[in-house]
Amino acid sequence: MINRQYLLAKRPKGLPEKTTWKYVETSVAELQEGEMLIENHYVSLDPAMRAWMNETRSYIEPIGLGKVMRAGTVGQVIRTKGNTKFEQGTFVTGWGGVQDFTISSGNDFYQIDPGKVGLPTFVGTLGMPGMTAYFGILEVGKIKKGDVVLVSGAAGAVGSIVGQIAKIKGCKVVGIAGGKHKCAYLVNELGFDGAIDYKNESVRKAIKRECPTGIDVYFDNVGGEILDAALMFLRMHARVVVCGAISQYNETVAKGPNNYLSLLVNRASMKGMVVLDYAKNYQQAIHQMSEWMANGKLKSKEDVYEGMDQFYETFLRLFSGEKLGKLVLKIKQ
Amino acid sequence: MINRQYLLAKRPKGLPEKTTWKYVETSVAELQEGEMLIENHYVSLDPAMRAWMNETRSYIEPIGLGKVMRAGTVGQVIRTKGNTKFEQGTFVTGWGGVQDFTISSGNDFYQIDPGKVGLPTFVGTLGMPGMTAYFGILEVGKIKKGDVVLVSGAAGAVGSIVGQIAKIKGCKVVGIAGGKHKCAYLVNELGFDGAIDYKNESVRKAIKRECPTGIDVYFDNVGGEILDAALMFLRMHARVVVCGAISQYNETVAKGPNNYLSLLVNRASMKGMVVLDYAKNYQQAIHQMSEWMANGKLKSKEDVYEGMDQFYETFLRLFSGEKLGKLVLKIKQ
Repeated sequence: MINRQYLLAKRPKGLPEKTTWKYVETSVAELQEGEMLIENHYVSLDPAMRAWMNETRSYIEPIGLGKVMRAGTVGQVIRTKGNTKFEQGTFVTGWGGVQDFTISSGNDFYQIDPGKVGLPTFVGTLGMPGMTAYFGILEVGKIKKGDVVLVSGAAGAVGSIVGQIAKIKGCKVVGIAGGKHKCAYLVNELGFDGAIDYKNESVRKAIKRECPTGIDVYFDNVGGEILDAALMFLRMHARVVVCGAISQYNETVAKGPNNYLSLLVNRASMKGMVVLDYAKNYQQAIHQMSEWMANGKLKSKEDVYEGMDQFYETFLRLFSGEKLGKLVLKIKQ
Repeated sequence: MINRQYLLAKRPKGLPEKTTWKYVETSVAELQEGEMLIENHYVSLDPAMRAWMNETRSYIEPIGLGKVMRAGTVGQVIRTKGNTKFEQGTFVTGWGGVQDFTISSGNDFYQIDPGKVGLPTFVGTLGMPGMTAYFGILEVGKIKKGDVVLVSGAAGAVGSIVGQIAKIKGCKVVGIAGGKHKCAYLVNELGFDGAIDYKNESVRKAIKRECPTGIDVYFDNVGGEILDAALMFLRMHARVVVCGAISQYNETVAKGPNNYLSLLVNRASMKGMVVLDYAKNYQQAIHQMSEWMANGKLKSKEDVYEGMDQFYETFLRLFSGEKLGKLVLKIKQ
């Protein structure tokens, strides 16, 4: 049994290169008592992976050099030894890493029910991105009916769910995305009230057009110039949810928001969030999100590429924006 | 009766010049029914004045060109006509402006009792700066016993009170100020646990030394590089109070905090405040602060310069830092 793996070979400066990882083929070790062998079907590709590759600690430990590249996965338990957390055949999601097989006690894995939705959804809308969107917009953004909500990275895994939840809750929702295709998707498929194409128009002018009375909640996935533009249009007591900053992850020094004094003028707040803090409420959120999906109120979109050898090219799509919805790599042959 | 006045002559770019204002001498108009003539004794000099001079709206309307320079004042009602809010002889504080005499219905003025503390204290610790400190550190900073509190502009009107209130509430308090004299003042006179001299040491290294376990609350009066340094040391769920940014007020574009993603990593928040929002609770705060002052728990320091003709030079001390405590100009001859 050959285990194809991507190991972190060096810490990237700027955009990772192909040689940032080392591709190896190893043989799968013998299971110890209580261990399971999980065959990974899908690997999740998330912006946060870039931060984990740096030497400095972010909200979790950096990936060690020479270690398997950390990634969320969906897979199946195909072998067990002794008394294990899950039975053989169980589908699970967890931090399987960019590799075919993961040996685990199962402590960091959750059982999933692949009956109703496709496997990739469990690393998307019903996985970390979905949980991030759910708790970010509800607990940190504290949206209420009638709020004007602006979200960046709006066609992505987190942003698309943020916007849809805000619509369900009776907000006016405007999304920022790159390109006409994505913008049309937001309005026509996801029911957003407006869309801003940051690649083809002035974001500042477009926010003024789409949110003429200002913004109550800005959910930020991108940072940089877009964050600065959003800050200009905060209403009194507005909330800025700092979820990510994909435009800055490959920079040595992040661009600071020059317009941050808008927080003062508007008595607004900017708050960071990490989804892991809400783990004890994941099940409740998954239940709610599943119900919305079943009722057709929430659409889940995964952009699935295929082949372990496509890992690097697929990873780069996080930064080029050449994807729609949740970026996933199918690795099971 | 000659009224010496400073009028806003032009909108400054960068640090105001002497010609930013026009000095005029006018005669005092006749009082109308219900009006009072207030003789201003002291003019308050505050960093916020710089923001009011810009064309763009901050949290209140810009000062109109050709209008008397807006400023807080302490004065005395010396003449009344008809049925007025205050009697002749009453001492009042309010927005009298940089001028000897103000005619007012008294609606924006508050009666003060000059018996127990000096008049300048009513534009300092018992005025806007004191109120800003009180509500900023308690309501926005939400300090609790044992918190590590870092405050910038710590020898100033707001910062010195912030730090003392935090000490009263059982916090560990470290102040950032410019120069050895101010730093010694913080520790020896005000009882701060530590001081950082931003003019003579690396703020980053000094925060690490003074706050080795990190910061729970950072109260920011200065912005710029110091804000960035503070962000590096936030503890989990830290609160950053954005009260001001004196280092940036003369810049066309404020420096954004490059380290703002520390908010994400540490689930921290950054919140703006404007003291005017707490007006309905001023009396309660003044009562508490007066009690602390009477008990010797809170020290109030005003740096008083004298002479209407010294307005410009004194104003510049806000930005050069050549002052200790609350900057006030005595104008009564």
